[in-house]
Amino acid sequence: MKKHAEAITFASVLFLSIVMLRQAAQAQNNSSQTVDNSGGMMAGEGMAKTNTPASPPLFVTKIPPGYRDWKLISVAHEAGTLNDIRAILGNDIALKAYREGKLPFPEGSIIARLAWSYVPSEENNKIFGHDQSFVAGTPTNGVQFMVKDSKKYAATGGWGYAHFNDGKPAPEAMLQSCYPCHLAIESRDFVFTRYSH
Amino acid sequence: MKKHAEAITFASVLFLSIVMLRQAAQAQNNSSQTVDNSGGMMAGEGMAKTNTPASPPLFVTKIPPGYRDWKLISVAHEAGTLNDIRAILGNDIALKAYREGKLPFPEGSIIARLAWSYVPSEENNKIFGHDQSFVAGTPTNGVQFMVKDSKKYAATGGWGYAHFNDGKPAPEAMLQSCYPCHLAIESRDFVFTRYSH
Repeated sequence: MKKHAEAITFASVLFLSIVMLRQAAQAQNNSSQTVDNSGGMMAGEGMAKTNTPASPPLFVTKIPPGYRDWKLISVAHEAGTLNDIRAILGNDIALKAYREGKLPFPEGSIIARLAWSYVPSEENNKIFGHDQSFVAGTPTNGVQFMVKDSKKYAATGGWGYAHFNDGKPAPEAMLQSCYPCHLAIESRDFVFTRYSH
Repeated sequence: MKKHAEAITFASVLFLSIVMLRQAAQAQNNSSQTVDNSGGMMAGEGMAKTNTPASPPLFVTKIPPGYRDWKLISVAHEAGTLNDIRAILGNDIALKAYREGKLPFPEGSIIARLAWSYVPSEENNKIFGHDQSFVAGTPTNGVQFMVKDSKKYAATGGWGYAHFNDGKPAPEAMLQSCYPCHLAIESRDFVFTRYSH
């Protein structure tokens, strides 16, 4: 009876250990950029085929260095609750693809979205002689990135999503909402912004 | 009598030739970037002291190469009759001065203003679920530059102004209006746009 109880205890501990190890590995998958959870999918394969419950989305957790020096893709104003004026910048790989009109974007492409509060410029309006000028105020609505790595981010169409508020990554719950929206523009490799010549 | 008439004719031709040569030189002054009409003024001296009827303003007549690759200074929306959304870019000299908060801008600074029509994005609004998105449409209102050369452009505060429509320089009559407006912001070295971090 004692041996039987010992065997049950041993089996239980072993089972719990395996569960805990799997959970730890899973947590690491979710928070690290260095882990490849692609399951061996090739670049360019669609997310719909690769996203399974066993491979939850990964997000970008580090701000790509030097992004403020990147070249301009385009500009936009989002009214409503966002109420910002924004610039979309890209690293050299993304810019080249944009200018050549190539889709999908090649590996290593990064697109950055910077936003500032949308404010009327009293200074400018005084010169114009009437109210018409809206400029970029203080940074607002964080800084966002899309990073192309078809293997690492296979679960979200080959793009890793990121949002940083004051340099800190947004909670994953918030990042979960990126990909479902970008799915609407799958035909342009999940990228909304068009290049402005 | 004949000799007298010949002398008058010779003098008249000589006079007219001198007048025409001066006019030709003046015209070249107005249209060329390579002419220095600073009258020996030193860099940084104000325009009010140097602009005389003998030194009319010079304008920039060639598009600075590679400007579309320059780094972003800021973005803005001008409503009213302009109705554009714009990006202000700068070459490396201008960017460095902006980031270090240095005024006046050093020699060689160039600031570019690109503008596109301000259009609602049906594509984006469909995703947002309501109308809020305004993006950059086709290029509009030309491309403008300010080029810092305190000697060459002494007559206009050390900045040469330029406006190009489809790659062609705007008429000088239009460019005459640049400096009087920028005078309002003389305290920031005649530059309206502030850097957006």
